[in-house]
Amino acid sequence: MLAVHLENRRVSVKRVPRPRPPHGFALIRLLCAGICNTDLELQRGYYGFSGIPGHEFVGEVVEASRRNLIGRRVVGEINLDCGACDWCRKRLGRHCPTRKVLGIVKHPGAFREFLTLPERNLHVLPDSIPTEQAVFVEPLAAASEILDQVQIPCSSQVAVLGDGKLGLLAAQVLRAHGYRVHQFGHHKEKLRIAARAGIATEVVHERLPQAEYDWVVEATGSPKGLAAAVGMTRARGTIILKSTVHGLVGVDSAPVIVNEITLVGSRCGRFEPAIELLKLGAINVADMISERMPLDRAPAAFREAAKPAVMKVFLTGC
Amino acid sequence: MLAVHLENRRVSVKRVPRPRPPHGFALIRLLCAGICNTDLELQRGYYGFSGIPGHEFVGEVVEASRRNLIGRRVVGEINLDCGACDWCRKRLGRHCPTRKVLGIVKHPGAFREFLTLPERNLHVLPDSIPTEQAVFVEPLAAASEILDQVQIPCSSQVAVLGDGKLGLLAAQVLRAHGYRVHQFGHHKEKLRIAARAGIATEVVHERLPQAEYDWVVEATGSPKGLAAAVGMTRARGTIILKSTVHGLVGVDSAPVIVNEITLVGSRCGRFEPAIELLKLGAINVADMISERMPLDRAPAAFREAAKPAVMKVFLTGC
Repeated sequence: MLAVHLENRRVSVKRVPRPRPPHGFALIRLLCAGICNTDLELQRGYYGFSGIPGHEFVGEVVEASRRNLIGRRVVGEINLDCGACDWCRKRLGRHCPTRKVLGIVKHPGAFREFLTLPERNLHVLPDSIPTEQAVFVEPLAAASEILDQVQIPCSSQVAVLGDGKLGLLAAQVLRAHGYRVHQFGHHKEKLRIAARAGIATEVVHERLPQAEYDWVVEATGSPKGLAAAVGMTRARGTIILKSTVHGLVGVDSAPVIVNEITLVGSRCGRFEPAIELLKLGAINVADMISERMPLDRAPAAFREAAKPAVMKVFLTGC
Repeated sequence: MLAVHLENRRVSVKRVPRPRPPHGFALIRLLCAGICNTDLELQRGYYGFSGIPGHEFVGEVVEASRRNLIGRRVVGEINLDCGACDWCRKRLGRHCPTRKVLGIVKHPGAFREFLTLPERNLHVLPDSIPTEQAVFVEPLAAASEILDQVQIPCSSQVAVLGDGKLGLLAAQVLRAHGYRVHQFGHHKEKLRIAARAGIATEVVHERLPQAEYDWVVEATGSPKGLAAAVGMTRARGTIILKSTVHGLVGVDSAPVIVNEITLVGSRCGRFEPAIELLKLGAINVADMISERMPLDRAPAAFREAAKPAVMKVFLTGC
């Protein structure tokens, strides 16, 4: 079967044996996978990664010990937790200290014709969600995680900084929950997707509003984003940090302390709310799809995904 | 009267006219004032400060429109708020955007024989609290602010990083509230004060414990403190930031995001809990007093206060 490989910043496609799922794991045939910014960062050397990347996917179960999974269309939680530690018992296996992570840490990813995942990681998709939309379940879960971490009072104003994929999803999730969302970004085209969802958008030219928001989502993906977010936040306000930036970020901690700002790191989320939002048709993900390429064109797909104006690039099963 | 002046990093003592309190303000005769790290930072150029510093004090009211204040021993809230904005209406005048701050922003400080403050900023001290202990009300309020900002479950383990004055006060406040406190610092002598209060202490030689605490108070006063605190904190844990560090702090935001850590900036607090703790005798501040010098020896007192082994240095009214 075909599998995408990342090594020394190079993307290649190799022919490898089909994996054999260990007990408790399902074998899944890839239908469609999304290239995420994290994949691009892995390519740049983040985590010292080499291997098969990919963690946003929809597949069809081919083998499983739970017979009722076979033939079903599924998405899969990306953290392979131990199932036994304190974190796992609290249903927070996303923080299990011995976890593997699909396509990121110690478990080969989804950019291959067949992948394996523990059966308990799988969520069967309702027929009403098209496959291409369901590829967004994983990033949409990460966007929804915000609302699992902080209690934002009803109909509050929330600023979202950044108009990349995660910024657009976060803004839409917040909007779908009734918040008044102001999104700031550099790309008129991308912000148009937000505007269609009833989000107030602003193309950033120079100065951002200062000390105007109690709630700010930092999703710029840039090392400068944090300082910008701190400036926008009112005293006692909260910033949700969604940008994983590789390396050191310089921040003036004085305004954080003087203004008693809270910063909340935020990563993966539960899949359930994401599936529910897509079922409701509450999130426009269709407009975020830029390209579809088969797995064997992965090198070109990665190049495409790295272009600033491009949004989601899909790799499809062959 | 005598007043301490800071200008171009130089501490001097000048003879100046006694201030005339405007309507609503009291005239207060200084009994005793404490040199705080913020005063030392002001001397180093923080906030571009020049003028009369000092914000930790106990005084006796000499003139006031509220007659029952006259002759009373008082401490004073340091933020001079407008009293009318949203912040002030929420009793959070500490964040009033047009506030002045005693000895820090636009209001001459307490290092002078007579000072002025709005009468509504004053708290009359109970006789049971000695004057020297009451000088600690302001920093103790800042330490108590932690418990106004975050809800730490009963009897949790809390790590306090740093054994300076604020670190010792924070550790003792937490201990007095029943938390199991582990304090880490570089100064055996200072940590002894914490140990006497039932706090587990550890002199830091090399490596700090990694990912062991759900609650960490960062009170090192050092730009390296934040990274150390992030390393000590478990996934989904909370760090309370008490160190005002001048300038940029380099932080690797990736572990904050991957481990979904919350950072909470924390500054001034309400005086009431601090006065209550001193009334209860719950905080050992007496052992934190290193020196007492009269106002006219302020230059020597500032030099003394800047020495690493020295704790609180008092300036006393002449």
